[in-house]
Order: sequence, then structure tokens, then C-alpha cells
Amino acid sequence: MDYEKIFSDAIKAIRDEGRYRVFADITRHRGDFPRATRHDAGDNARSITVWCSNDYLGMGQHPKVLEAMHTALDETGAGAGGTRNIAGTNHYHVLLENELADLHGKEAALLFTSGYISNEATLSTVAKLLPGCVIFSDELNHASMIQGIRNSGAERHIFRHNDLDHLEELLMAADPLAPKLIAFESVYSMDGDIAPIEKICDLADKYGAMTYLDEVHAVGLYGPRGGGVSDRDGLADRLTIIEGTLGKAFGVMGGYIASSKMLVDVVRSYASGFIFTTALSPVLAAGAYASVKHLKGSSAEREKHQERAAQLKKRFKEANLPVMDSESHIVPVFIGDPVLCKEVSDILLNEFGIYVQPINYPTVPKGTERLRFTPGPLHDDNVMDDLVRSLCDIWERLNLVRKAA
Amino acid sequence: MDYEKIFSDAIKAIRDEGRYRVFADITRHRGDFPRATRHDAGDNARSITVWCSNDYLGMGQHPKVLEAMHTALDETGAGAGGTRNIAGTNHYHVLLENELADLHGKEAALLFTSGYISNEATLSTVAKLLPGCVIFSDELNHASMIQGIRNSGAERHIFRHNDLDHLEELLMAADPLAPKLIAFESVYSMDGDIAPIEKICDLADKYGAMTYLDEVHAVGLYGPRGGGVSDRDGLADRLTIIEGTLGKAFGVMGGYIASSKMLVDVVRSYASGFIFTTALSPVLAAGAYASVKHLKGSSAEREKHQERAAQLKKRFKEANLPVMDSESHIVPVFIGDPVLCKEVSDILLNEFGIYVQPINYPTVPKGTERLRFTPGPLHDDNVMDDLVRSLCDIWERLNLVRKAA
Repeated sequence: MDYEKIFSDAIKAIRDEGRYRVFADITRHRGDFPRATRHDAGDNARSITVWCSNDYLGMGQHPKVLEAMHTALDETGAGAGGTRNIAGTNHYHVLLENELADLHGKEAALLFTSGYISNEATLSTVAKLLPGCVIFSDELNHASMIQGIRNSGAERHIFRHNDLDHLEELLMAADPLAPKLIAFESVYSMDGDIAPIEKICDLADKYGAMTYLDEVHAVGLYGPRGGGVSDRDGLADRLTIIEGTLGKAFGVMGGYIASSKMLVDVVRSYASGFIFTTALSPVLAAGAYASVKHLKGSSAEREKHQERAAQLKKRFKEANLPVMDSESHIVPVFIGDPVLCKEVSDILLNEFGIYVQPINYPTVPKGTERLRFTPGPLHDDNVMDDLVRSLCDIWERLNLVRKAA
Repeated sequence: MDYEKIFSDAIKAIRDEGRYRVFADITRHRGDFPRATRHDAGDNARSITVWCSNDYLGMGQHPKVLEAMHTALDETGAGAGGTRNIAGTNHYHVLLENELADLHGKEAALLFTSGYISNEATLSTVAKLLPGCVIFSDELNHASMIQGIRNSGAERHIFRHNDLDHLEELLMAADPLAPKLIAFESVYSMDGDIAPIEKICDLADKYGAMTYLDEVHAVGLYGPRGGGVSDRDGLADRLTIIEGTLGKAFGVMGGYIASSKMLVDVVRSYASGFIFTTALSPVLAAGAYASVKHLKGSSAEREKHQERAAQLKKRFKEANLPVMDSESHIVPVFIGDPVLCKEVSDILLNEFGIYVQPINYPTVPKGTERLRFTPGPLHDDNVMDDLVRSLCDIWERLNLVRKAA
């Protein structure tokens, strides 16, 4: 059996579609965000501006975060040294879980090694524990939620994106006595639109369903304390489970859920992806703890972030670039073809020193390929001018469509 | 629907079996391993000796590792800021992947956020890409391998633990034309026994199967360069995929695979658990890189580790404690009952300041509950004396069985 041949055919299929991924090898510089150094294949280094980081606020370089991590490193060392149950629970985990529970006004929180695994482990475990559970899942939910829902083995119904009528139709058609779970996100990261959280909670109440809200692209960024869109809209108490990440606005790494004491205990006690894995490094937990605490008490970063995102959208519109509608801080520009999308991105990087990754399938549906900009508090007017100028140059050169998608 | 009631019943079931888990909240002290501080529920702090860490060599406190992490933190900041494809690839990832490929004599390596996800993502992806793939899996394989195999949807056959005859029987019965994958571990972490790697590779050759070897409890610890048991036995080139962790002997956090360039590329390009998650923090990658490099060139830690494990087994045998047979550095002591197991562990912790976690179901089969000791280079004769004395005291007090299981 020629296994290598099968694998090489699989790679060829991706290449033929123009969506083979080459990772940009970059080194960010503390204190100089969004500037970074890119190492190319020949190991030449070149200075670039990063326009697609999910370290939305630059908290990964915040002095308080770095100081907390240096301190933890000197105090306790590099790793946790075990699973949470076997020698791996560190006092920083306990402090951080208390802080996250408080952030969302919930009784308890639970840390995971990533947001991916928090979604996978929680959704699969909760649905497995509810015999006959039916899951209602937004069609644009993240891959990790889909994975968790599949792994639960539960009956699942996909509702059209943010479509309340469709969701209600499906809820109505389900067995009234079956346990139900509605899984959705607050900010959808590739389009930048926001779910009608309150109305989904109303439907959940009406049909006796639990709610699971992924806030990974919103925690730290929305709400008076950075508790996400559910914090901004005063809805946290209506959600059964809120899931978040420490690796985007909080600038570090790891994921978590916040919920009732009992639900957290049951996930802690039954979820394979939580039990059988080395705990989050105490260094990361210490950094995330400092970051969450800082953003709870400071809205300056959030305000600047929104102002910068609005500014970039305005400039793109004025330049007649096809910026896609977005209610959030995410600024997607439509291309609609994987090969062109990569070409624009390559020219930006190689000629203009501007780094924005092409977003192709499977991250977005085919035919909706795009560039996705994530302006932050540290993207000033100068780098915005430079970006708009460079894009206009390329749009002209490649004769790209200019009207908004 | 009273969801909380269902969850509370699920917790009650675990409590009734005596296997409800209470995490010990401990803070390790750099430079003072294996001593640590335990915080109890009343937040009182007490000094303890840790006997169950998987930071087997204390590399999580090694000056080279800590220095590399301090440097990376100051250079690049806390987190990667994105997935590997979207702004998250850092130069440390590239260096570390090259180093790990070299460690195992493979063409390429790929990092994951944990060993759990490296097993889950790789096994599920590889088997999915091979139409009609049949997987042969050791019955004691880790939960993360089982999860990956299940998620692949492939036909699977479980062979009796380390049983070559049974494995061959199953291989023989399978369709000769079907793609095949044999998945197993080198060191089984709860029993401490070692797989017959060479003979499994012989069977794989005979029946045209690929091999997947989990070396998480062996990398850093076995072989002239710390490449695991496959390195010690000169067998690395016969394995299709070697999987390892950065969170045990290397002392940090994260997982990886090493294999052919094509196989790594296909996992990189197709695996959901790799693609859709924030990349490993560059701080962790820098620490792991320093750790792997150090242990490649230094065998002193490995030799001391083996000597200490042999010493502890000898002392347990001399004291007539029921130490289980183990070919490796892992020293399990048989109890055979979840309630007693927890009781012994509680007395050790509360009265003697000795921390060893009770190992109950689902980590081991019911009826084989045990204490699992992981002596390291820093567990000196004094702490061993203290441990044996304390265990003998408890064995007498609770009238426990003394003969080896």
C-alpha cells in the first residue's frame, strides 16, 4: 500500500484549489506591536506590519502581563508537571478560575488548554450526560463546536445563521420532553456580525433549552468589564454556559467555560479532553490572570479598539474598497476567489511589508474568500494610510472589483 | 427540564463509587523541587513533597529552560496571537519543529497545543484520509488515542495489551488490500511496562500497516539523545509516526508528531484540531526548544532518573510493599479499591506532607486502583526513607495487603 502516494494526492487536491497554506514565520517584538520580523524560506528577515493578529488589544505585550509571567516563571517554573488531578493544579489556576467566574457573574469556571478543547470537551460531555439531548447549532459555528457536537453523538439540527425563525421552527418540531441545548457564538469571527443573544435566550426559555455561548472573539473586548457581548448587553445570567479564550484579547493562551457550580463540576469530572491532559502552564495562567484583572478595571483599550476599527472601515469605504458589513471590530474585505485572495496577500507582504493572511476554505465557505483585518489600539493613522494606499494600488493593478460585497 | 438535577445525579454516581476528584492546589518552588506548597480549602499553606509529577527530570525548573522563556517573553510577548496560519507562526515554532524532527530522525515535525490534541488530531485525520482504513489499537492506549480513533470513524480492532499473537490474528483477519494503522504506546504510564516495538514493526511490515507510536512517557527519558524507547532501541526509522509531549520530561507544555514530510504536511493541512486553534505560546516553544536541545546532549539526568527509580522499587520491595512490576521509571503500588486508595493518599498528604494522587477509574480499570510514584533525579535518599516509613505506618494502621500484586 503506497501511503505516501495517497497523502501526496490529498495535498495536490488542496494545491489545485489554490488553498495550500504557507505559514508566515514571524517574530513579534515586545513594545513594537504591530511591527514584527518576517523570516522567509531563505531565512532572510524583513520588518512587516501585522494586520491579522487576534491579540486584539496588544495585551500579549502589556507590562502587567509580562511581569506576572516573569514572576510565575521564577516562582514555580515552566510547566504544570501533570494533569489537573495528578500534581498539575497550581494556585494560579485556582485564582484564574475564580476571576473568570466573577468576570461572567457565574458560580464557577474551568480552564482548558485551548478554546478549541473547551468547546469540544464541554459540548460533547454535556450532551452525552443528557439522555436524548437535541442540539441546535448555528450553521456558522466554529469547527471546535461542530467537533464537540459531533462527538457527543446527540441528535443535532443546524439553524440558518442568526435566523430566529428557523431556530424556533426547529425547536418547535423537536420532542417537547427532550433535553435541548442551543449552541452559538456572540461575535462570528470571519464576518464580524453579532448574534441576537437576548432573543435566542427568550426562545431557550420558551422551549426549555440550555444555552451555550462562545464568546472567544468578544471576551476582553465588549462590556464594562470585558465579559463579552453578554456583559455589554447585561445578559450573562441568562446563558447556561459562556465559553471564552485566553489566547485572543487576553493575549496569552488557553480556554475556559463559566457556568453553574454543578455544570462545571460535571465537565471537570467527565470530560476526557479536560481530565487526560497536562494542565495549563502556571506561567500562562499567571499572565492570563493579570490580563483579565487589568481589562476588568480598564475600558481605555476597548474604547480605542472600537475607534480604530470604525476608523479603518471608514477609510476602506472612502477608498471604495469592498469592505464587508460588520457590527464588530473585525474588518473583512471581500475577494471571492482563493487564488486571487492569496495573490493580493502575497503582494502586500512581499512588496509592501503588510501582513494579512488570505482567508480561504475551510475557514470560510468557498466563493467567499477574503482578507480579514483586525485593527487594534496600536494601529495608528499612519499605518492605516499606508494600508489603504497599498490596497488601492493592488486593486488597480489586478483590476479587482471595488463595490462593497 | 431540571438539568441541574441530572448533573447532580451524575456527580453523585462518582461520589458513590468513591472516585470523586478533589484537586490538590499546589505551588511548586523553583530550585526546591520536589518540595511544594499546598493550599487547602481554608487557604492554609503547607510544605509538601511531590511524588507524582510528570515533570520527570525537573526540567521545568532547569536554568536553561527558564532563561529561554524569560528571553522569549521579553522579545516577543506572551501569546502567539493567532492560529499557525493566521499570524500565529513564530520563529520559535519553526526552530522547535526542526529540532523535534531531528530528535526522532524524521523529515518533519508538527506542534500541537497538547499531547492530547496531537493524538486526537493526527489519528483521526490520517485514518480519515485513507479510504477503508482499519486501525489496530492496544487495549491500554491513552484516552486521547481512543478519542482520535473513534473520531476517524474507521473500522477498529482492539488487541490485548502488548499481545503480539492477538495483534497478528487481527491483522491476518483483515482485508489484505485495506490500508492499516497500528496504534500503540512505548511506555504505558499507569503500569510502567514497555511495548515490544520491534516485533510490532515486524508485523506492520508483514501486513503492510503504518505504525503510530505514542512516546509521551519516554521522550527525554530514554535513548542516547532522549528520543524515547524507539531511540534507545534504534527503531525510530521503522515507525511511521512518533508522537510526543513537551509537558512531561521536557517540563513545559504542548505536544507534537514527527514523521515524513508528506504525512506532516497532510496533518497540517487537514486536521481540525491543528488548524482551528491558537498556536502554542512562543514562550513555551522557546522553553521546550531549550529543554529538548539540552537533553539531546546530556544523559546525566536520564541516568540519575533510572537510578532513582530502581532505588525506590528496591526499597518498596524490601519493605514488602505491593509494588507492581514495571520495566520503566514508573513505580505503581497496588491498592485495588478506590475508597482505600483515596484514604491512603489523604493520610499521606494530611499527616505526612507527602503528595501522591490516588489513581482511580477511568484512568485505570476498576479494581486496579493504585498509587503511582514518579521518582526523579531530585528525590534523594532522605525523602525516600521518609516515604517508605510513612507508607509502612499507614499499611499497618489500615491493615493493607503487603505482598506484591
